[in-house]
Amino acid sequence: MKYSGLVGKLLDEANAELGDVIEVRKTKDAQTGILMPHHDFSDASIITLKLPNGYNVGIKVDQNTKAKVVSKRESKNRKKPVLPRDPAKKEIAVISTGGTIASYVDYRTGAVHPAISAEELIFSVPELLDLCNVRAKVLYSILSENMKVTHWQGLARAVADELNSGAVGVIVPHGTDTLGFTSAALSFMLRNLTGPVICVGSQRSSDRPSSDAIMNLLAATRLCVESDLGEVVVLMHGESADSFTLAHRGTKVRKMHSSRRDAFKSINIEPIARVEGPEMTFLSEYTKRSKGPVELKDKIDGNASMLHFYPGFEAEHFDLIAEKVKGIVVAGTGLGHVSEEIVGSIKRAVKNGVHVYITTQCLYGSVNMNVYSTGRDMIVAGAVPLGDMLPETAYVKLMWAMGQTTDPEEVRKIMLTNIAGEFTSRRQI
Amino acid sequence: MKYSGLVGKLLDEANAELGDVIEVRKTKDAQTGILMPHHDFSDASIITLKLPNGYNVGIKVDQNTKAKVVSKRESKNRKKPVLPRDPAKKEIAVISTGGTIASYVDYRTGAVHPAISAEELIFSVPELLDLCNVRAKVLYSILSENMKVTHWQGLARAVADELNSGAVGVIVPHGTDTLGFTSAALSFMLRNLTGPVICVGSQRSSDRPSSDAIMNLLAATRLCVESDLGEVVVLMHGESADSFTLAHRGTKVRKMHSSRRDAFKSINIEPIARVEGPEMTFLSEYTKRSKGPVELKDKIDGNASMLHFYPGFEAEHFDLIAEKVKGIVVAGTGLGHVSEEIVGSIKRAVKNGVHVYITTQCLYGSVNMNVYSTGRDMIVAGAVPLGDMLPETAYVKLMWAMGQTTDPEEVRKIMLTNIAGEFTSRRQI
Repeated sequence: MKYSGLVGKLLDEANAELGDVIEVRKTKDAQTGILMPHHDFSDASIITLKLPNGYNVGIKVDQNTKAKVVSKRESKNRKKPVLPRDPAKKEIAVISTGGTIASYVDYRTGAVHPAISAEELIFSVPELLDLCNVRAKVLYSILSENMKVTHWQGLARAVADELNSGAVGVIVPHGTDTLGFTSAALSFMLRNLTGPVICVGSQRSSDRPSSDAIMNLLAATRLCVESDLGEVVVLMHGESADSFTLAHRGTKVRKMHSSRRDAFKSINIEPIARVEGPEMTFLSEYTKRSKGPVELKDKIDGNASMLHFYPGFEAEHFDLIAEKVKGIVVAGTGLGHVSEEIVGSIKRAVKNGVHVYITTQCLYGSVNMNVYSTGRDMIVAGAVPLGDMLPETAYVKLMWAMGQTTDPEEVRKIMLTNIAGEFTSRRQI
Repeated sequence: MKYSGLVGKLLDEANAELGDVIEVRKTKDAQTGILMPHHDFSDASIITLKLPNGYNVGIKVDQNTKAKVVSKRESKNRKKPVLPRDPAKKEIAVISTGGTIASYVDYRTGAVHPAISAEELIFSVPELLDLCNVRAKVLYSILSENMKVTHWQGLARAVADELNSGAVGVIVPHGTDTLGFTSAALSFMLRNLTGPVICVGSQRSSDRPSSDAIMNLLAATRLCVESDLGEVVVLMHGESADSFTLAHRGTKVRKMHSSRRDAFKSINIEPIARVEGPEMTFLSEYTKRSKGPVELKDKIDGNASMLHFYPGFEAEHFDLIAEKVKGIVVAGTGLGHVSEEIVGSIKRAVKNGVHVYITTQCLYGSVNMNVYSTGRDMIVAGAVPLGDMLPETAYVKLMWAMGQTTDPEEVRKIMLTNIAGEFTSRRQI
């Protein structure tokens, strides 16, 4: 965001660029700091400096304000490092997709840059090169809220390629916002895994002293090199402190806090593994590495919606969406309920050939359509309950199932089959 | 559900009614049990009996099957009990709305009946008559998934009436599915409370031996009679066992499990109080009883939607809903994000005068629109972030705010003012 108007003129005259250290002098006093970008929602006449103490200050510019450059910013061009190779070591692949973990903060401007090279990411955790060789590439460089189903497909293909060409495991740095959706998609698209596929994120960018990226990347590397895990997992901090990480099954994990480093929780199941330094402890049953090759089932039909029911949800709105899509996952209340009006909408949708599946917005626990009349009415209307499957996982699975077959009975059969641990067996709940 | 066809004819000839003990004899053997209702999704030729051991059995009826009544069901007419009155005791009000807590299981038929009288509900917990006099009434008799904004209004009026005519507290038995929505609505609609308004539910109906209704009702009564609490709270079990209950602030509580008795959790805040037998412990700051009178602000404009963002959410779908409503609460990912396409939809909606507010689907933690470019773009588009307010609470509050004023700036001001503890102060997170 560039400065304009009076401020723009002042800076142009001083030949000052973003990132330069400048001095801004008003009638009485002067302040020196790094010139920061203009904030969209601050006044156009405000100039923002990052002071040596790290704080930003806004200075209101008027006709008498003067500015001069104290020192120019450092060069933007950083050298691309080369990763070492030791023929005695196993090889892992790192396929970066973007997000906080693959970004860095420019301390001179304060801006977060999303596009760090995969090599730089690896060199921020040099210890992992002691454990293995690393093939690193940047597949995407996007914030995870912009991930689409086509990105899941491209990622699944890239992962399969790496595993089928000798990598003992794949690490996928990824933004945390939609990490649980991507891990679910990979869980369904990749079968017969020869090694773990570990989606890692961080809540603090990887060049910050307090970053969780380093520990998460290192723990993921250990699981790739030293374990027999053959599943898609999400690996993140197990608690706020830098003490241990947890690997969660890709279909049973959800971001449950907007900012904590231990934001990710296994829902309705124990995490698969705990990694603390070199120690790996498996906490629940898991699928082991297969002999391969990895099977890729990347077809997906994105024409589905997820709808959360709430009091006041208009049947008309449900109908509008139902006319546009082939499948709907409803996140109902409690055991999976909706109002009687929405039962009517479900009935109409099913009659028109729309797949309607039921999950619970409680997130924890299972749906059960047999306890109350509402649930029984929903079954009669044609809705299909999905046990303790997470709404988000059910949404991803439905699109994937619709990609596998166009036969409604086959879709239903796929949805009710436990393919990647998305259903918890009763004794585990 | 009545039986029809061959089974209907057999039962009619035997003069058997639901709830009767009957004997069903096939060629070789006979079974005796209580005649249960026909299940919608079981075969029409199946007769269902509840055996003396408590299990249900389905018997396939053919031309040779015989049936006879062993004993007729007990009378359906139960006497309405009269509640005692002791002039030395304080008085509380119980306003029943329906749900599991206000239902009973007919052991003869196995069916759950939603309409227990308020008096019967009280007599299922006779200990509470030792603590106070009780005025009891059934305001609604509905499953909570069928609650509408108009029900919240009627309930708020009834609560205000009771408090303003001398009740020291009001207990609201309510279905658990949408209990958190109702408690939020009451929190905004009722100001200057002279006593606690305690929404209670149960996960097992109140005449079952394992019911949590009894303990919840008794603890709610204690808070009404013996505490200085002046807030709307939800009171439910604190753990699975019958050990203690927790009172949660009405705007900060969510059903987080579909079936556990301790399903309700305070989000981003400690519960207000813990009740264990006669012991009441306050765990966080709370508003005390006022001298009154209770102020009723029951106007509400139901023309709003809550939309959960997810990868693949079509901008076209957002636009369709945005054209129908005056306000939208978005439950974004992470710090409150949506994809760039949905940022475009938000921009269009705001331009058309729709209120758009942002919360996080993580549920725990706060939104923050200043960390990433997506958040900053959303602010520029006109979305307003709501800190750590729950999506459900924000949805209720938005409809309430739109009921208080038609001036968009006033709506925004109301939304950003902490009215009923819906924002947690920073130090408490």
